[in-house]
Amino acid sequence: MNFSSDNASGAAPEILEAIRAANNGTARAYGEDVWTARLEKEMARVFACDVWVYPVLTGTAANALALAAVVPQYGAIFCHEGAHIATEECGAPEFFTGGARLVTLASRDGKLSPGQIERALAQFEKGSVHHAQPAAVSITQASDFGTCYRPEEIGAISSLAHSHGMKLHMDGARLANAIAFLGCTPAEATWRTGVDVLSYGATKNGAMGAEAIVFFNEEHARDFGYRRKKAGQLASKMRYVSVQLVCAFEEDRWLRWANHANALARQLAMRLATVEGVEIAWPVEANAVFAFLTDALIDRLHARGVSFYEWNAGSDGRRLVRLMTSFATPEDDIKRLIEAASG
Amino acid sequence: MNFSSDNASGAAPEILEAIRAANNGTARAYGEDVWTARLEKEMARVFACDVWVYPVLTGTAANALALAAVVPQYGAIFCHEGAHIATEECGAPEFFTGGARLVTLASRDGKLSPGQIERALAQFEKGSVHHAQPAAVSITQASDFGTCYRPEEIGAISSLAHSHGMKLHMDGARLANAIAFLGCTPAEATWRTGVDVLSYGATKNGAMGAEAIVFFNEEHARDFGYRRKKAGQLASKMRYVSVQLVCAFEEDRWLRWANHANALARQLAMRLATVEGVEIAWPVEANAVFAFLTDALIDRLHARGVSFYEWNAGSDGRRLVRLMTSFATPEDDIKRLIEAASG
Amino acid sequence: MNFSSDNASGAAPEILEAIRAANNGTARAYGEDVWTARLEKEMARVFACDVWVYPVLTGTAANALALAAVVPQYGAIFCHEGAHIATEECGAPEFFTGGARLVTLASRDGKLSPGQIERALAQFEKGSVHHAQPAAVSITQASDFGTCYRPEEIGAISSLAHSHGMKLHMDGARLANAIAFLGCTPAEATWRTGVDVLSYGATKNGAMGAEAIVFFNEEHARDFGYRRKKAGQLASKMRYVSVQLVCAFEEDRWLRWANHANALARQLAMRLATVEGVEIAWPVEANAVFAFLTDALIDRLHARGVSFYEWNAGSDGRRLVRLMTSFATPEDDIKRLIEAASG
Amino acid sequence: MNFSSDNASGAAPEILEAIRAANNGTARAYGEDVWTARLEKEMARVFACDVWVYPVLTGTAANALALAAVVPQYGAIFCHEGAHIATEECGAPEFFTGGARLVTLASRDGKLSPGQIERALAQFEKGSVHHAQPAAVSITQASDFGTCYRPEEIGAISSLAHSHGMKLHMDGARLANAIAFLGCTPAEATWRTGVDVLSYGATKNGAMGAEAIVFFNEEHARDFGYRRKKAGQLASKMRYVSVQLVCAFEEDRWLRWANHANALARQLAMRLATVEGVEIAWPVEANAVFAFLTDALIDRLHARGVSFYEWNAGSDGRRLVRLMTSFATPEDDIKRLIEAASG
Repeated sequence: MNFSSDNASGAAPEILEAIRAANNGTARAYGEDVWTARLEKEMARVFACDVWVYPVLTGTAANALALAAVVPQYGAIFCHEGAHIATEECGAPEFFTGGARLVTLASRDGKLSPGQIERALAQFEKGSVHHAQPAAVSITQASDFGTCYRPEEIGAISSLAHSHGMKLHMDGARLANAIAFLGCTPAEATWRTGVDVLSYGATKNGAMGAEAIVFFNEEHARDFGYRRKKAGQLASKMRYVSVQLVCAFEEDRWLRWANHANALARQLAMRLATVEGVEIAWPVEANAVFAFLTDALIDRLHARGVSFYEWNAGSDGRRLVRLMTSFATPEDDIKRLIEAASG
Repeated sequence: MNFSSDNASGAAPEILEAIRAANNGTARAYGEDVWTARLEKEMARVFACDVWVYPVLTGTAANALALAAVVPQYGAIFCHEGAHIATEECGAPEFFTGGARLVTLASRDGKLSPGQIERALAQFEKGSVHHAQPAAVSITQASDFGTCYRPEEIGAISSLAHSHGMKLHMDGARLANAIAFLGCTPAEATWRTGVDVLSYGATKNGAMGAEAIVFFNEEHARDFGYRRKKAGQLASKMRYVSVQLVCAFEEDRWLRWANHANALARQLAMRLATVEGVEIAWPVEANAVFAFLTDALIDRLHARGVSFYEWNAGSDGRRLVRLMTSFATPEDDIKRLIEAASG
Repeated sequence: MNFSSDNASGAAPEILEAIRAANNGTARAYGEDVWTARLEKEMARVFACDVWVYPVLTGTAANALALAAVVPQYGAIFCHEGAHIATEECGAPEFFTGGARLVTLASRDGKLSPGQIERALAQFEKGSVHHAQPAAVSITQASDFGTCYRPEEIGAISSLAHSHGMKLHMDGARLANAIAFLGCTPAEATWRTGVDVLSYGATKNGAMGAEAIVFFNEEHARDFGYRRKKAGQLASKMRYVSVQLVCAFEEDRWLRWANHANALARQLAMRLATVEGVEIAWPVEANAVFAFLTDALIDRLHARGVSFYEWNAGSDGRRLVRLMTSFATPEDDIKRLIEAASG
Repeated sequence: MNFSSDNASGAAPEILEAIRAANNGTARAYGEDVWTARLEKEMARVFACDVWVYPVLTGTAANALALAAVVPQYGAIFCHEGAHIATEECGAPEFFTGGARLVTLASRDGKLSPGQIERALAQFEKGSVHHAQPAAVSITQASDFGTCYRPEEIGAISSLAHSHGMKLHMDGARLANAIAFLGCTPAEATWRTGVDVLSYGATKNGAMGAEAIVFFNEEHARDFGYRRKKAGQLASKMRYVSVQLVCAFEEDRWLRWANHANALARQLAMRLATVEGVEIAWPVEANAVFAFLTDALIDRLHARGVSFYEWNAGSDGRRLVRLMTSFATPEDDIKRLIEAASG
């Protein structure tokens, strides 16, 4: 049983089938193929607006290049201290921006609030050449702690960001899970509430490897094609990347897959909460369950072959752990995990 | 009929089947999976030596990161003026090295010679902080003009490079085609003749999208894992990249596919040479046919739906064109192209 | 009366005289002059060891290039949250290192302790390519809060740093003030207690504009000449930079100047402490006096033409302010400031 | 006798006196002083237009940062193959631009022509993300070969550049010498003929070390203050840099000094031309004499203590050498050099 991460799962059969279908004869390389053209149309439909879409190959590149498109080298980027860009990308945003600085803010649930961004901004002297200049806020939806920003929360952050001349970036590696939970439209979750640039990730939700940088404003995309190429992120046989994204958006598969993962996470949390010595850390909104477990329970689960991450030590000698579900998690795994946990 | 580039072709059925087979349950992410481990073993077998293998996602990244691993920011890289790194990568090597300089050298057949490198070196004042310092020679095998370095030619270049403290990088986007033509071992084509770091490309030869940076010396690979991650080139579901490479090397498929492409290019050249107004520009060694065609012939081919690239104007009002074959080019396309050319 | 910063002062007459004396006929450019050679000898004498000295032109460049010499692009640098590199250099360290990350740590007195560095290190997963890798500790001597590390404190930090494979960098923009206070030898303040690379600043202490990056280990300096040049920090008429540094070190002028500044700061603190409503924030060790003042007192001082920086709000409605002295502060200014403060 | 370079000379007495006069009491740091304000006014007067002036500390920084202000990371910069940015700056432009590419063009006299730029442009596929995009032309005035662009030549180049969406940068390390030769106004030599950004150098012409980046368009300067700071080029005691520039421009000293250097170069060329075995390579316009000398004559001059640079081998077994004069070259040195040359 593997609850370590949603990227431990494979690819959905529909994705493989879409790739197989795209593997038909020759096609123009470097994104001038019909699948890539279809992707932009499909995303315009899904997001109900004009979009400028640039498929790339990893989530790290999606985040770092999206930020580099809207943040100057002397900029500061405000994000949660647990954000993927701050903790898991080996400083890629700093590299691709030419040395911008991440300003990390703490909160229990993995989400930023306008108040804390405002307090952090107060430390910056705008217009002083000695200091990095506030340039962007980056939020993660669903957050790295499995929680989701409500549209009005995004709107409040974007209002603040824009009033200070900053852009709002969304790391949407798990945007599908967030939208599935919120039940809002993709538009409400992004540009209608002020998101300027989105890193959309399909990889954790059914794809083999496909990410897209989505601009909601043509100006931001103006010279992005050169930047993507120079960054080594322009796939030659792009059709195989684009078709994964097309497949995920068509027939709302991305939301169905996310719904499956979310549902299993909720189920897991509910049943785990009944096991002695377990405390669910915070409400489960997307596909991650954070829980405090006793050392004995952790050892027992590992012994029974359950993979998951230990986060850090909590109160009462218990440890915080993360259990993730995905589009491919078998329902039976929940039952088996609870059995293992219950001894 | 598409003779525009070998990356216009799709993926080999064996590659799709290997991906399908790898899509089985969960796997550790970020290259800690069994397919990636198998890849290093497989390449050690193929190259008959220890290798340090880092799969990446595009040829541009493979070249730029390989060079950045062995060239300091103040370094100079000697390459052919028609090399992919000089003409087709939007300055990615300069970006990833932190500002190293490409020194481009001309030759009719796309290959560098020790003599011209030596003459170029004479312009550099070694040890002077005012000048970029010679740091690497980068050769392309097969070259961008479809010609192949003989092992002894590589040896002569590497001897010169090493005697000046420079590393030898090989852009092996079409290494399979070169080895298939030369009939030498992969070892003879690379480390035995002094190649320090290889960018191996499977994408143009049967894969969907899979490249690998191969170090033949552990020292060069020492901190490369961090560099790849920071560059946004560490795939999370790496198994799908690695398995493509494994599939290509297993059962010598890479050479069989390359042989097919080479054979068709030779056949195409032989038959095209008999068409009035055609002059084959130089001997066809790999899978590219460079030929001088009259404008009338070019127009006729385009009118018949043949895609290919026009290179530049030649003598006698003819133009140089490039016709490429791939592992997937149908034999029948050669016949049809010749029929179209013959009027 | 200007107590805003020690860089508000001009240059010492001896510095101007040394420049005048160096302005004699022609000299080899780019540091191949006799003054630059003399500087290395003079600093070897002062530090009682072999040194590799690279004059540069600003303190920001001295810090950023020194760090870039010992920190890889994927490195993490631990420093105080009030360190000049973190707060006053617009992200220059991130730029010159190619994207390394500053990890800022808080303390009341502006100094780092081994314990807090160790706790911060515990958050880093060494050997994981996803995370920036601990590469250097940077300490500021005297600190930005005017306090001084004792040699044994430096030794404890360097032991910890070295045991984790990190280098110890010292921002010595006010090293003279620290050594004048400590009464130790320059060697004890630096390499004998484990400093690997020093950014030495003469500008704040008598010079017009002269900084030096000092390596205590030849290996770190190996290719530094190229890096300095590429960074635009190799002065063509270097003699005018080097001679300022030579002049400062000769006859121990640097320490005499620093002693003057320190003595006046102590005197200022002692007398200011007797003014009603004033609380000296922490012991004055170098040439900065941090004190809590009432708003009324701050207003009065400004009204009397006293310049100084307001830091931040303290307890009891008082504000923290910084008053700096320099080698050139007239003794009379202390008396006049106290008179102004006393109403 | 030192004819090696104009930066072998010291500083003019007026410069030293201006520095001494500025060394009076305290001043605001980082360019907020009265001398820096006066500099912008003085340069507006000299150039007869609004200017945005940023003093920096080296010519390499002046060029690299000026280019980085107007060239994106994916840009191409067209310059002469002998340009300082191409041959003497260790790749600083590539570093500060984030990896832009220099495209070097050859000509006998060190100057670019619109025709050759146009031919070079024809090699670039505009709008293709695979290729660096033409972004700037950089010309050197006076050129590295001692020749001067006429205003109409600059106008022709800027027209071409602007019609292709490129900016025109002028490396004015010896602009004073060019204007002194041309007898035109500074405006005619720069913005009136289409120069967008100027790197003005005072160091080679009387100053100790003072350069300025001059924008003729506010838009280009918009965020340049941050870039200068982040690049480590914002001097803390800026008054000493600015006052050198002010001094040079006041009372037209820059042109008087340049006139002296130019006059001596012309005199040197005229008299040297009469020495047996000497051929002046091209007309002397600024302060450099390029001449073909026999090996015997070169040896004799070196033996008599004359310093100069040997460029490269010419025809008839003679070698090309460069002899430079400066504002400080004693008239007597010309006589003595001719005596030495004449045996």
